[in-house]
Amino acid sequence: MSNLRIYRDSLSLLTDLYELTMAYSYWKAGIADRQAVFCVFFREHPFRGGYTIAAGLGSLVEWIERLRFDEEDLSYLAGLTGNDGKPLFEKGFLAHLRNLEFSFDIDAMPEGTVVFPRQPLVRVTGSILQCQILETAVLNLVNFQSLIATKAARVCMAARGDPVIEFGLRRAQGIDGGLTASRAAYLGGCEATSNVLAGKLFDIPVKGTLAHSWVMCFDNEAESFEVYAAAMPNNCVFLVDTYDSLDGVHNAVRVGRWLSERGHRMVGIRLDSGDLAYLSLEARRILDDAGFRDAAIVASNNLDEGLILSLKEQGATIGVWGVGTQLVTAFDEPALGGVYKLTAVRDSSRDRWTYKIKLSEQVNKASIPGVLQVRRYHTESEFLADVMYDEQMGIDDAGVVIDPTDVTRRKQIPVGSQSTDLLVPVFRAGKRVMEMPALVRSRQRAADQLSRLHTGTKRLVNPHEYPAGLAENLFELRNNLILELKQKP
Amino acid sequence: MSNLRIYRDSLSLLTDLYELTMAYSYWKAGIADRQAVFCVFFREHPFRGGYTIAAGLGSLVEWIERLRFDEEDLSYLAGLTGNDGKPLFEKGFLAHLRNLEFSFDIDAMPEGTVVFPRQPLVRVTGSILQCQILETAVLNLVNFQSLIATKAARVCMAARGDPVIEFGLRRAQGIDGGLTASRAAYLGGCEATSNVLAGKLFDIPVKGTLAHSWVMCFDNEAESFEVYAAAMPNNCVFLVDTYDSLDGVHNAVRVGRWLSERGHRMVGIRLDSGDLAYLSLEARRILDDAGFRDAAIVASNNLDEGLILSLKEQGATIGVWGVGTQLVTAFDEPALGGVYKLTAVRDSSRDRWTYKIKLSEQVNKASIPGVLQVRRYHTESEFLADVMYDEQMGIDDAGVVIDPTDVTRRKQIPVGSQSTDLLVPVFRAGKRVMEMPALVRSRQRAADQLSRLHTGTKRLVNPHEYPAGLAENLFELRNNLILELKQKP
Repeated sequence: MSNLRIYRDSLSLLTDLYELTMAYSYWKAGIADRQAVFCVFFREHPFRGGYTIAAGLGSLVEWIERLRFDEEDLSYLAGLTGNDGKPLFEKGFLAHLRNLEFSFDIDAMPEGTVVFPRQPLVRVTGSILQCQILETAVLNLVNFQSLIATKAARVCMAARGDPVIEFGLRRAQGIDGGLTASRAAYLGGCEATSNVLAGKLFDIPVKGTLAHSWVMCFDNEAESFEVYAAAMPNNCVFLVDTYDSLDGVHNAVRVGRWLSERGHRMVGIRLDSGDLAYLSLEARRILDDAGFRDAAIVASNNLDEGLILSLKEQGATIGVWGVGTQLVTAFDEPALGGVYKLTAVRDSSRDRWTYKIKLSEQVNKASIPGVLQVRRYHTESEFLADVMYDEQMGIDDAGVVIDPTDVTRRKQIPVGSQSTDLLVPVFRAGKRVMEMPALVRSRQRAADQLSRLHTGTKRLVNPHEYPAGLAENLFELRNNLILELKQKP
Repeated sequence: MSNLRIYRDSLSLLTDLYELTMAYSYWKAGIADRQAVFCVFFREHPFRGGYTIAAGLGSLVEWIERLRFDEEDLSYLAGLTGNDGKPLFEKGFLAHLRNLEFSFDIDAMPEGTVVFPRQPLVRVTGSILQCQILETAVLNLVNFQSLIATKAARVCMAARGDPVIEFGLRRAQGIDGGLTASRAAYLGGCEATSNVLAGKLFDIPVKGTLAHSWVMCFDNEAESFEVYAAAMPNNCVFLVDTYDSLDGVHNAVRVGRWLSERGHRMVGIRLDSGDLAYLSLEARRILDDAGFRDAAIVASNNLDEGLILSLKEQGATIGVWGVGTQLVTAFDEPALGGVYKLTAVRDSSRDRWTYKIKLSEQVNKASIPGVLQVRRYHTESEFLADVMYDEQMGIDDAGVVIDPTDVTRRKQIPVGSQSTDLLVPVFRAGKRVMEMPALVRSRQRAADQLSRLHTGTKRLVNPHEYPAGLAENLFELRNNLILELKQKP
């Protein structure tokens, strides 16, 4: 068996075992049809930032649309045993899985939406058995891509409009650690990727020219540039640092002239080591003096938003940024702590939801109960405030929004502003009802959403906290539930 | 197109574009058959540790054995254009890719081998075109799995023989970020995973019982434990912290008695928040007082080797460790900086290799030339020293080993010890010649290799540096090449 075979068949076993032991126990106890609401949320923005970009829904929808337990899956599950050596799962349950007809509803924020702590990115409503089966994959797909889309937006912001190219496949965490990082990085604002398969799968522009090995394969650098230019004159970015970066720029200039004489254009040079601020200024001078004012200086070498910001402040004349490891692994914070929490249940015979909450040693970490939705108040050009509310209780558009971590922080909902509910229907009764946008449209959505956030909220360090809280009735419901649970023995 | 479809077909485009533009240019220049040697190595151990465990070769071999350019790949490549809007690749080159017959040799360290900085984990010898096509996938697969296997070994060392279960899928970087992390974590010493698909694909034991959502779905915790125990009496680890951890332990004890009366056995309880040192001691007391001396205390909640060490030092009575995010993302250092460097070339008509080196601003970072092999000197029970040498020049078993970063650090090769060359043949002339071991055998190899490292080298903080250096003739060759290149204009 091979991990490289997995995508040929079913991915339904891409789950933690406890989802299945719980599903089994619900089934065995005769309560598998109990209706439940689960919400995906995180508690803090990654990178100490002021915003997060929702991503991964497109991949999640594909996973769900392929979800079925095939005979090989069921046979594997049939072989699992408990601490008495007997099977974990009865045959009747495996038959139930085989014949499962999905009937859940899913609502989610479209990819590219700016999202804040504790807001549901995805809400799943359905039989508790089915909700449980979705949990792990939902978290896996949404956590990682949201993390990377957010990192990419930060890197692109530091680059102040210069193109950023994602170069990370060789250091990414596995094959689709690389592929989905390329996808999310493009969504978050990158212009292109080096990853050819990501380019093909997701329709992302791909870029690439030559590496040190090309230069080293020849007797000297000048010869290596000449041979490359003759072979591929319409794709020339010369990597100049194999031996000495500024010697390399002079060699590039000579070959650039050779290209110009033949009607081609040298795209630029790439610096991959050394003092990028100093070298870029010197390289710019050499290129400009030789008449190559349009030739770009591409830089790479463990760049992230902090280094790019610093290079910008030093006046580096870098025009294109190649960002790899730091971006695709979100090196400084490589996981988004999204969770999938039960927020309401009801017996299938009843109309009303019972609210559910998980306590914690710290009240701030207790979950938020309800059939949750987020209403964003905004003008055409700016987001003003987000209010989380329970669909069963409704929302008072003339009310206040309360910070769930600080009861004294409250804000009047802006009168007369427009509003949009952020969770949109994706599945109804197990069938997809949302038309999935092309990735480039989600990328535009991210750019549009970011443009409507206040500059202070987008600041890379110590950002302003965007007003996102709870409707007053939801805040009170939550407090009452916490107090009630704490009074129990 | 979808990333979930990729494993159905070809993965040959899992590469950086520059590998293909270089391949094209070699072909176009008529030098695609120039023979080359590339070596994969890293410059520093991850996590400031004293060792790294090689992993990922199994996945790499599978990737290579599927490698072919199918019509869909070629058609995508045919559509790529340069800065003049004309195709990047001529049709003749695409035909060359279509008909490519692989003829490379690959030598590599078997998975589970302990490896040190600058040593080749993988060595590829073949036409430069073919070597280049392999680069990105080699790095992607070997870098990540070696990183995670090493992290797992550290976590297991901190746990001092207690079982460690990998729980990370929900926060892993993509689908096979999770799957290959489970694989590598098992190789590095974990006992089981929560990831069912990894269990099925790689034959890893899987574990799981219930989550907070199970407890919350009922009116109270006691009822939730009772229903679960009745449904799945042979797989009972009760999660006790949904409301109050020690109340939860008392509830578990009551249900544990109910299980005992029916001939079953409560496996244990799980703590997932709060002060794990204090709670584990209290929980142990409650369990012991109730006669459940065999019931395990499982702990989870953002654990890593440092926290486990600290809990051990505080006398925590935790018997099983559930480790997730920190392990599967290698949170504190989420990428291993392995590179793939050209170390020798020759024209296909010649016998002798020409050595190649890449300079750098710092001499310590310059690459090491040669057809590299590593000889490990050892006794039955202990590793003594590793010497890297060039197969063309050979090695003097009575010579010295020199630290490439410090010419004054040298050591006599231990006289009369046994020795083993670490790189073994994996492919010859494009065909696999190595029988790939089952994952559990690679796991045993890792355990055996670690047992033969001196304790000081395995220390989690400030480890002793294992003697691994260059043969004297290789050291001199490298110095001469550096001086020669620096004298050139």
